[in-house]
Amino acid sequence: MKIDGTPFRTIWLDDDGWSVRVIDQTRLPWSLDFLRLQDVQAAAHAIRSMQVRGAPLIGAAAAYGMALALRTDPGTDAMERAAEQLAATRPTAINLRWALDRMLTRLRNTATGARAAAAYAEAAAIADEDVATNAAIGRHGLPLIEQAAAARAAAGQPPQPVNVLTHCNAGWLATVDWGTALAPIYAAHDAGVPVHVWVDETRPRNQGAALTAWELGKHGVPHTVISDNAGGHLMQHGRVDLAIVGTDRVTRTGDVANKIGTYLKALAAHDNGIPFWVASPGSTIDWTVSDGIAEIPIEERDAAEVTTVTGRGLDGKVATVRVTPTSSPAANPAFDVTPARLVTGLITERGCCDATLGGLAGMFPEHA
Amino acid sequence: MKIDGTPFRTIWLDDDGWSVRVIDQTRLPWSLDFLRLQDVQAAAHAIRSMQVRGAPLIGAAAAYGMALALRTDPGTDAMERAAEQLAATRPTAINLRWALDRMLTRLRNTATGARAAAAYAEAAAIADEDVATNAAIGRHGLPLIEQAAAARAAAGQPPQPVNVLTHCNAGWLATVDWGTALAPIYAAHDAGVPVHVWVDETRPRNQGAALTAWELGKHGVPHTVISDNAGGHLMQHGRVDLAIVGTDRVTRTGDVANKIGTYLKALAAHDNGIPFWVASPGSTIDWTVSDGIAEIPIEERDAAEVTTVTGRGLDGKVATVRVTPTSSPAANPAFDVTPARLVTGLITERGCCDATLGGLAGMFPEHA
Repeated sequence: MKIDGTPFRTIWLDDDGWSVRVIDQTRLPWSLDFLRLQDVQAAAHAIRSMQVRGAPLIGAAAAYGMALALRTDPGTDAMERAAEQLAATRPTAINLRWALDRMLTRLRNTATGARAAAAYAEAAAIADEDVATNAAIGRHGLPLIEQAAAARAAAGQPPQPVNVLTHCNAGWLATVDWGTALAPIYAAHDAGVPVHVWVDETRPRNQGAALTAWELGKHGVPHTVISDNAGGHLMQHGRVDLAIVGTDRVTRTGDVANKIGTYLKALAAHDNGIPFWVASPGSTIDWTVSDGIAEIPIEERDAAEVTTVTGRGLDGKVATVRVTPTSSPAANPAFDVTPARLVTGLITERGCCDATLGGLAGMFPEHA
Repeated sequence: MKIDGTPFRTIWLDDDGWSVRVIDQTRLPWSLDFLRLQDVQAAAHAIRSMQVRGAPLIGAAAAYGMALALRTDPGTDAMERAAEQLAATRPTAINLRWALDRMLTRLRNTATGARAAAAYAEAAAIADEDVATNAAIGRHGLPLIEQAAAARAAAGQPPQPVNVLTHCNAGWLATVDWGTALAPIYAAHDAGVPVHVWVDETRPRNQGAALTAWELGKHGVPHTVISDNAGGHLMQHGRVDLAIVGTDRVTRTGDVANKIGTYLKALAAHDNGIPFWVASPGSTIDWTVSDGIAEIPIEERDAAEVTTVTGRGLDGKVATVRVTPTSSPAANPAFDVTPARLVTGLITERGCCDATLGGLAGMFPEHA
């Protein structure tokens, strides 16, 4: 999407044709810094330190990391070592493993001398396919926003932007471009459908306040940051037309694992008759799991994410402050599971479907 | 309650017999500082700057402010001016107005020479009555926690503390002593019933992270701070036995206005079959309002509360950091309304009752 009018992806080849450029997301929203990755170590560091984050972007960054490694040493031992090094950066990231497996499958059958070029081509294909997937989610989600605008007009309500609530960052920064949950919003905005986004700040890591607000603002999409506590109240008062969130994993039955707090917004949407949609690329569907609440393990992250907050001080410097008494412990479950019964539907790259086994099987018959 | 073993109230007379001591709550949890209020100006400043906060404590502080004023000038003009000055500090605080009216009713009929002594006596009565009210809420709420412990034992579950979730600060810091929502928790803890509190941090002002965590810790009650997003997940996994929150206003039909985000926790409790109780002194019931969502105006507070966070930096100094892009607007509704259908019951100083017109009328027949 755009940054102040200029189109960007989150990862691209430098003009030199081989080094890899990314946005340093640890510096957002305070500073827009670009990194130039010149070897596999730099790529691994960028993933480990969350300079690049978001499952699809991590996959693309790992793929380009393989290309950087093979440019220096296309031998099989070095190739396998590079893949191991990259896989170890974020051990639980499924997309990372998937991208590396895809690269290795392609490259193991490629002659040593042709590996570097093949790796760059495959990494570019992974990136382009992610863009195409997300653009398709945007196309399929756009009618949901158009319908909300039409419903408002049909009800004789005063013209105003369609209000979409989102949680966490499932935007273009988390992917190569477009994002998942934000793709329909960008599609609507670019098509001239007036849209306004309620951005949950998304404690404890503040991905909404820091990243979603930043990318919407830079693309020119009207938005307002709210505390995670506010969405239910806004829904009670007719100020939310629909909610769209991303997901880390969808069960075959339509249960949705996503950033902690998603479940609370789904409850509020259900209680107020507001559509609650989940943007779910086919790659996020886990066909082996049926009961999301019972079966999906929830990562418990560092309590320091709850006890402290990082931001920019009055002196312009980024600083971390502690918000709790030093003797008070904190707990930090990072994700929750929204039962399928609270999900209006899933927006996939193939179209929208019910959050049910039948809905998913109809959309992805090859897996069902 | 206790601070490191020493009993405290939030407001008390100094050993000199006339000046008023309070805890400077703007310094919590980073520093325990006491203020000595020696005139009505200091009392007004303490209320306005939120050095004292919480409806019952504000009422008591205003009452003592009147006593300080009359000590200097017991004349009628000065008395009326002092009341006006104190009333203007927090214009929407109903308890503040109530306490000042009570003081004036008592003092207008008192001879000038006897006014200061009468004011001190009436302020002490207001403070003592608040303590008695909250202690009674604690007594009536204690069986709810005991029942949760018994239910756990009857179900053959391993012995562990009763887990109570609370939102915002409805503890002794918000009152003269005991608190409202925390009163049953202190009663249980002091009675030897093992209890553990999940403390919602309560963005945007972090009253849970800063005040509830502090006061529970200082009294020795086991607790864990969580992001506001986490409660639903904990409830889904059986890690919350009941929720108890405070309230700013209860309608005659049992709708509950409380800190923003309360509604989301009530939805999650309802969805998981977990009791959701509201500690409601009779003074919080507004017998003129029937539909809380439609009729209770919700204060929209400064967006800076959302865009910034205050805490203690690594250098030990209290600092404020900005967490959102400077160009992103924020909205900050400060309260929400939980419909009565989601409230298991109200804990009043007279006992527990249903959150219904019938329940409230049975408990407070003189108002119904």
